[in-house]
Amino acid sequence: VWQKETGVREPKVHEWIRSLSPGADHVEWQNVDVTLLGVPLSRSSISASAASETPHAMRQAWKGFVPYNLDYDVDLTPLNVVDLGDVKQHVTDIAWSHKAITDAMYAMRTHHPNTFPLALGGDHSITAMLVKGWKKAHPDERIGILQLDTHFDLRSLKDNGPSNGTPIRNLIESGTIKGEDVWNIGLHGFFNAKSLKEYADRAGIRYVTMRRARQRGLDAVIQEALLDLKRRVDTVYVTVDMDVLDIAYGPGAPATTPGGMQTDELFTAVTAAGRDPHVKAMDIVCLDPHKDVAQATVKAGVHTMLSFLTGFYLRQHD
Amino acid sequence: VWQKETGVREPKVHEWIRSLSPGADHVEWQNVDVTLLGVPLSRSSISASAASETPHAMRQAWKGFVPYNLDYDVDLTPLNVVDLGDVKQHVTDIAWSHKAITDAMYAMRTHHPNTFPLALGGDHSITAMLVKGWKKAHPDERIGILQLDTHFDLRSLKDNGPSNGTPIRNLIESGTIKGEDVWNIGLHGFFNAKSLKEYADRAGIRYVTMRRARQRGLDAVIQEALLDLKRRVDTVYVTVDMDVLDIAYGPGAPATTPGGMQTDELFTAVTAAGRDPHVKAMDIVCLDPHKDVAQATVKAGVHTMLSFLTGFYLRQHD
Amino acid sequence: VWQKETGVREPKVHEWIRSLSPGADHVEWQNVDVTLLGVPLSRSSISASAASETPHAMRQAWKGFVPYNLDYDVDLTPLNVVDLGDVKQHVTDIAWSHKAITDAMYAMRTHHPNTFPLALGGDHSITAMLVKGWKKAHPDERIGILQLDTHFDLRSLKDNGPSNGTPIRNLIESGTIKGEDVWNIGLHGFFNAKSLKEYADRAGIRYVTMRRARQRGLDAVIQEALLDLKRRVDTVYVTVDMDVLDIAYGPGAPATTPGGMQTDELFTAVTAAGRDPHVKAMDIVCLDPHKDVAQATVKAGVHTMLSFLTGFYLRQHD
Amino acid sequence: VWQKETGVREPKVHEWIRSLSPGADHVEWQNVDVTLLGVPLSRSSISASAASETPHAMRQAWKGFVPYNLDYDVDLTPLNVVDLGDVKQHVTDIAWSHKAITDAMYAMRTHHPNTFPLALGGDHSITAMLVKGWKKAHPDERIGILQLDTHFDLRSLKDNGPSNGTPIRNLIESGTIKGEDVWNIGLHGFFNAKSLKEYADRAGIRYVTMRRARQRGLDAVIQEALLDLKRRVDTVYVTVDMDVLDIAYGPGAPATTPGGMQTDELFTAVTAAGRDPHVKAMDIVCLDPHKDVAQATVKAGVHTMLSFLTGFYLRQHD
Amino acid sequence: VWQKETGVREPKVHEWIRSLSPGADHVEWQNVDVTLLGVPLSRSSISASAASETPHAMRQAWKGFVPYNLDYDVDLTPLNVVDLGDVKQHVTDIAWSHKAITDAMYAMRTHHPNTFPLALGGDHSITAMLVKGWKKAHPDERIGILQLDTHFDLRSLKDNGPSNGTPIRNLIESGTIKGEDVWNIGLHGFFNAKSLKEYADRAGIRYVTMRRARQRGLDAVIQEALLDLKRRVDTVYVTVDMDVLDIAYGPGAPATTPGGMQTDELFTAVTAAGRDPHVKAMDIVCLDPHKDVAQATVKAGVHTMLSFLTGFYLRQHD
Amino acid sequence: VWQKETGVREPKVHEWIRSLSPGADHVEWQNVDVTLLGVPLSRSSISASAASETPHAMRQAWKGFVPYNLDYDVDLTPLNVVDLGDVKQHVTDIAWSHKAITDAMYAMRTHHPNTFPLALGGDHSITAMLVKGWKKAHPDERIGILQLDTHFDLRSLKDNGPSNGTPIRNLIESGTIKGEDVWNIGLHGFFNAKSLKEYADRAGIRYVTMRRARQRGLDAVIQEALLDLKRRVDTVYVTVDMDVLDIAYGPGAPATTPGGMQTDELFTAVTAAGRDPHVKAMDIVCLDPHKDVAQATVKAGVHTMLSFLTGFYLRQHD
Ligand SMILES: [Ca+2]
Ligand SMILES: [Ca+2]
Ligand SMILES: [Ca+2]
Ligand SMILES: [Ca+2]
Ligand SMILES: [Ca+2]
Ligand SMILES: [Ca+2]
Ligand SMILES: [Ca+2]
Ligand SMILES: [Ca+2]
Ligand SMILES: [Ca+2]
Ligand SMILES: [Ca+2]
Ligand SMILES: [Ca+2]
Ligand SMILES: [Ca+2]
Repeated sequence: VWQKETGVREPKVHEWIRSLSPGADHVEWQNVDVTLLGVPLSRSSISASAASETPHAMRQAWKGFVPYNLDYDVDLTPLNVVDLGDVKQHVTDIAWSHKAITDAMYAMRTHHPNTFPLALGGDHSITAMLVKGWKKAHPDERIGILQLDTHFDLRSLKDNGPSNGTPIRNLIESGTIKGEDVWNIGLHGFFNAKSLKEYADRAGIRYVTMRRARQRGLDAVIQEALLDLKRRVDTVYVTVDMDVLDIAYGPGAPATTPGGMQTDELFTAVTAAGRDPHVKAMDIVCLDPHKDVAQATVKAGVHTMLSFLTGFYLRQHD
Repeated sequence: VWQKETGVREPKVHEWIRSLSPGADHVEWQNVDVTLLGVPLSRSSISASAASETPHAMRQAWKGFVPYNLDYDVDLTPLNVVDLGDVKQHVTDIAWSHKAITDAMYAMRTHHPNTFPLALGGDHSITAMLVKGWKKAHPDERIGILQLDTHFDLRSLKDNGPSNGTPIRNLIESGTIKGEDVWNIGLHGFFNAKSLKEYADRAGIRYVTMRRARQRGLDAVIQEALLDLKRRVDTVYVTVDMDVLDIAYGPGAPATTPGGMQTDELFTAVTAAGRDPHVKAMDIVCLDPHKDVAQATVKAGVHTMLSFLTGFYLRQHD
Repeated sequence: VWQKETGVREPKVHEWIRSLSPGADHVEWQNVDVTLLGVPLSRSSISASAASETPHAMRQAWKGFVPYNLDYDVDLTPLNVVDLGDVKQHVTDIAWSHKAITDAMYAMRTHHPNTFPLALGGDHSITAMLVKGWKKAHPDERIGILQLDTHFDLRSLKDNGPSNGTPIRNLIESGTIKGEDVWNIGLHGFFNAKSLKEYADRAGIRYVTMRRARQRGLDAVIQEALLDLKRRVDTVYVTVDMDVLDIAYGPGAPATTPGGMQTDELFTAVTAAGRDPHVKAMDIVCLDPHKDVAQATVKAGVHTMLSFLTGFYLRQHD
Repeated sequence: VWQKETGVREPKVHEWIRSLSPGADHVEWQNVDVTLLGVPLSRSSISASAASETPHAMRQAWKGFVPYNLDYDVDLTPLNVVDLGDVKQHVTDIAWSHKAITDAMYAMRTHHPNTFPLALGGDHSITAMLVKGWKKAHPDERIGILQLDTHFDLRSLKDNGPSNGTPIRNLIESGTIKGEDVWNIGLHGFFNAKSLKEYADRAGIRYVTMRRARQRGLDAVIQEALLDLKRRVDTVYVTVDMDVLDIAYGPGAPATTPGGMQTDELFTAVTAAGRDPHVKAMDIVCLDPHKDVAQATVKAGVHTMLSFLTGFYLRQHD
Repeated sequence: VWQKETGVREPKVHEWIRSLSPGADHVEWQNVDVTLLGVPLSRSSISASAASETPHAMRQAWKGFVPYNLDYDVDLTPLNVVDLGDVKQHVTDIAWSHKAITDAMYAMRTHHPNTFPLALGGDHSITAMLVKGWKKAHPDERIGILQLDTHFDLRSLKDNGPSNGTPIRNLIESGTIKGEDVWNIGLHGFFNAKSLKEYADRAGIRYVTMRRARQRGLDAVIQEALLDLKRRVDTVYVTVDMDVLDIAYGPGAPATTPGGMQTDELFTAVTAAGRDPHVKAMDIVCLDPHKDVAQATVKAGVHTMLSFLTGFYLRQHD
Repeated sequence: VWQKETGVREPKVHEWIRSLSPGADHVEWQNVDVTLLGVPLSRSSISASAASETPHAMRQAWKGFVPYNLDYDVDLTPLNVVDLGDVKQHVTDIAWSHKAITDAMYAMRTHHPNTFPLALGGDHSITAMLVKGWKKAHPDERIGILQLDTHFDLRSLKDNGPSNGTPIRNLIESGTIKGEDVWNIGLHGFFNAKSLKEYADRAGIRYVTMRRARQRGLDAVIQEALLDLKRRVDTVYVTVDMDVLDIAYGPGAPATTPGGMQTDELFTAVTAAGRDPHVKAMDIVCLDPHKDVAQATVKAGVHTMLSFLTGFYLRQHD
């Protein structure tokens, strides 16, 4: 008589992704393909944001998805994906929280280097922390960034510290990455001060505006970026700022604007990125579920994650 | 580094209420004071309703409540409350679903007669099914109903079967209860056809309109109703239709109207009802979380449940 | 097989109120108790308003009401109520529209003087036009105003013509009424310039703030106002500005504020007004359905109309 | 003075479509080109849905459309379209409602076989019932389905009966149609379990994912599907599940997702379908007006109907 | 300690655009490139509209934009843009307001003929008034109109005066422009009566539907229109009715529909128009901020203005 | 022709309150009665909050209020009120922001001790900082707190630092105030852990639950609290957490609940507090404009400020 989740033969996404207790020692880590980690930090955002609610919101929303991608005829269930829950955060000490994020990535790379880390933000400040954690674990690696974003994220850290407007500059100025190893795709419109574009040029950052990316096709642009990066770097880190979406498609990203990317373009882009073995980590950031309309952006966030995993599956099986 | 629910000394409501697996045989049922059962049925509603989402929405919402009532200085944690999950429902066979609800109450009363059943609807059609389940388990008991509602729920079953407009008539016409053993408090306005009022009069139903109840005080009216019922019945079943609330307080009840009850009046009423040992079962119905504004009605639903449990605690400890 | 409105024995409000074609000559006007007229004008509002949508919105909403008032045990169906539709309005010539409103009331009073006119605005500018129409038809009558409003509506017509901030001043300065024959009940807070209050004092307008009205009870205050007016005037015109409601109860009135009237107080007030035979016309204004939340204000508007009609019924049958 | 609908020379959609009383015997049925029938059933939906409100919502919304298509320079008014109102539905007996839908189509085909039936759902469960009604009237015809949908609708009926997840399977398993005579266009993403895709393959169902359909153009894909179907079937039934739309374009379809169809693609598709004389019936389903944003989806539903009728006009006049 | 706007080196849009007091005599008008004028009139709209709020809403929203266009690598700050505030409007005398708008444009052209006037509506009725003001100042000029709109705006003025459905007809019938000098791009769907299309044909108006414009590319269509107009006219006036946008992109335009323009298409179109020296004035109309969702349409309005100014900059510097 | 703010005789609130530049040396500080300071900090909130937007939102909203209180016939314009703008805040260093808040209050008290400071939060963490600033300026004063709140705000600072759940404990544990000098009025329901109530009892904090406060009348309870505090303390600091409001009245306070205070009760309470000369500072906190419905809570916040100032005026003139 009682309706309870029962073991179904064919799982929904939340039945396929395993939720692990932190201290669970029975995990056969060598078999884990991908680990998800929530990073519920958004008090480091310039404008008020509830991006901290995104890990929870995405976990709720993916109950409505199945791990089979009809567009590519790809069944994701052979992938072993575990969800480690959220990195612990502090209410009033942002520096403490940032360090915990770096530590989490460092711990992942040190203890479980064979699994692909996929972080669910949180705001964009976490990307600097995650990449630093990677660098700390792999000090000799050269790291490249493939960024989908409306913004450069090159604001000065002197003004307001490591906020969500600064991660790329943070990584460059800390010597974690080189400017020339950053590709930003999807920037557009009137949302980046000219001085930031000049900083980008000086630093050698590569970028393709939305208009140009659409003319050439997102898939082709991603290919070019990866080809270029692979010539120089060991690891490509993919970071998706959901505000790269057009406001019609991503109303729930705090800084979303007209003239942005469509969701099908975004899904194509991350699927392409997922296929490339040089891509070794990823995050999805700056999605505020409280601002969402009809749950469109949260669903787009989940779809982005699953599209990337489709590519990830294909890199192993194509 | 990982943020996971850890054993906290002082629980939130969701840490205090235990969630039981259906077949769990380790429950010491003799120690269980209250069992919660979700009844996610609303396809039996006259108008489109997502009241089926209420059990889930309330479980999510009570994570924001603590089991301590400051108004009455009552700590609920000594109460042993278990949540059995949802009664299984069918998508296209409403009669099947209705039978499952009756069966669930019957099973509860047969196997665990010492625990107080508290059902979370679902629409008001479930009340008829739950009371029938009680009657089946206790055929010799005379059952009275204390109903808080904007409506009589006395529509004819001939028109459209056991919909949410019919539960009281259903119970009377099936011989489960007598009309004179029904007290309806909080009716008001232009939402009951005159013929239903005439039916109520013929059936001997007692009712106090919102206007009169407010003039005399909800607490006093509830006392009078219970006093009257106790003279005749063995068991009082309390049913709270959330549309008894004024639309300013309960925008998320599908048929909510202006001129209704305020939440503080409702909480006073159910606390009073909870204190009376003749009250032996309860339900909360007709709350549609999809229609809610600022989560006001879902929170009011949880508050109603906890206020009733405050009274329930006091009946044992005063 | 086809579901169409069929003749039901017990009508909903829209089945009880008859909708008349304009030129219908078969109406037995001597039997008509009340005529409804929509006045879909709100381009005369100081702030942007869709109050012009209210007649349509109320007609849709009252399909959810029955013509039986449970609080007073009053069946409204013996009242003969007809809905004449909307007064024709012009898109860009507000003076033309205002004249049409005056003409409509004049025509009603001239041709069908035995029926009670109840206008559904539109914004408050229409009250001046309707009362002028009455005065034109009954030039010897002394007319008093019973106004439920957050505002005095005494702004100067020199600034911006006969807008919704001016009807009472318009009536006084045009000699249609005397200031001493105005009672305003429910004003409150920081929403009337001091100079308007001084104008009110100079003009002899009587007013009772919300705070004081609540202390004494709306019913008693209405009685006092009517008693006072009846000593002097032949006709009392009742005008209900829905922004008299507290913003929690009337979010859909453009200028609604905190600290206002509750709906049960408003219903009590208009029921009391309806009982008095000196009350000979009424309007309900300044409700913007596009701004409404959960349809609370539109429902409150319908409830206000039906509560007044309850009183109207009782004036004939008590 | 009174503003009432007057006979205008150039009609709006609601003035062009005639609303017929059920028993009207004066209809010259031989001249009727298209009949609309509302099917207000959504209690058969897996998730809570108010798709039952769609017939009413579309009738209200099309008052804002004119029957002239500027994109194709097509005046629809020569088409004789009548609206028969809604098929009667039962509140608690879904099987009864389903039978009434089959009966309605059967009656249409038997009594008025020269008119094109266009049904406005309701949820997708109605498609199975409507096609069965057709089959009953034309037992010798071979029927093909052209489905625009995010989903296969191939769930097992054993689990939960003929819900909105099952219509295509229902038709195949009941022998009403053959799997090979189904074309589904617009499926995408992570919303169909792999087992359903495998069922589709086994049954010989043809499908084109959204990604592929966009690459080739919706018009071309529709042509190919029709060409293929026409080789085998007598009648093509077009069913449009509004959740085929991207969530940015169709927020008011309960299961709408990112990555879906754009409205201009949908309008192109149904215009193409309307042109083909093999297309002999159509429905539009799974649109929940209560979930809509800015009325975008309801307007898209009306536009879909009128675009189809544009094609229907052109099939006769090209 | 106090946070106040301080002189920043790199301005936001609101720091770049200068806000001038009306009587400021220190303006070096010969250096002013562009003047903005708000026209807060929407009581002349057929349907209730708060387009009067748009000038204020856009001024608030552009605080979130910077005057650097990344897509074109154009820094707008060399342009000298001043905001003159709003044209004074009357609450109840629409003719007075319309005259004030004509006077404002006439005054601009007479006193400051070297500056480009860019008006922020208000509803579309203002376009007729602005163009008449231009004509009055330049009686010998032949003026062409480049209109982006879902509608022809050719309704008869006899019905309801110079409402927002009439500006193009108003200009033609008043002899201000010739029909053949009007290009309307982006019309679509079922939103223009056939008689208006016939009027357009008789008057020689040129138009390209949305479907055809998309097939050929907005940029190419704009070029063709300008090329054609330049052969005949002295001045091209650009008017952007925001309801040309698809409802998914422009939910905040009162008459917005499915099947319309995407924002990137609109930005491309106005950038192209801005480049042409024959374009000498512009307005943006029919945007209702109260109806907006996620501020998408207001942001699109600002982006439209800035995209046009990008083209305007390029006409001087390419 | 241009509509610009002109010098009006009778001011709105924003014309009465003067906005001062930080370094303005021409202020005659001895004549300033009240200074407003915005404190846009909410990244110290336990849950995501945009309370940082409140100072801006309130400044926008009070343009709709006039400085005349009709309920009390009090003209506020004789009061000299200046708005100093916002205390500077840091994006990622909360401790820095907290110190700036303390410094701001210290500077106010040191340089302009004759003016009454009224702070507009921000979240409740700022109260601890403001009171510490006062204490630093007046080390010998004994300070009492009159708190209107749903919560005790007594959480341990060890867990997460000086968040919005801790200000009262912060002040007690830092020795700034004594527990016995705190009166909390309006607490209710299930929103305070029992351990916090026990801490309150141990610390000697006085509190009156909402239920009891309503029974006795807010005015009387405030009087009693002030009478008690005045016996011991030199200065009473009033802090209003907007979540003390019932969720029907204050949907825009992040932690608002059913069963809370009504706005008229709140306005009565703060008017009473304003009258008492021992009350020397005030703040309004925890209002999130992004969560608001129909602007009800922001308007209530402004009304709270003006009601307090009404009392403040009366303390000088009664
Ligand atoms: Ca960004
Ligand atoms: Ca970013
Ligand atoms: Ca009920
Ligand atoms: Ca009810
Ligand atoms: Ca008024
Ligand atoms: Ca008013
Ligand atoms: Ca579907
Ligand atoms: Ca389907
Ligand atoms: Ca237009
Ligand atoms: Ca238009
Ligand atoms: Ca607090
Ligand atoms: Ca609080």
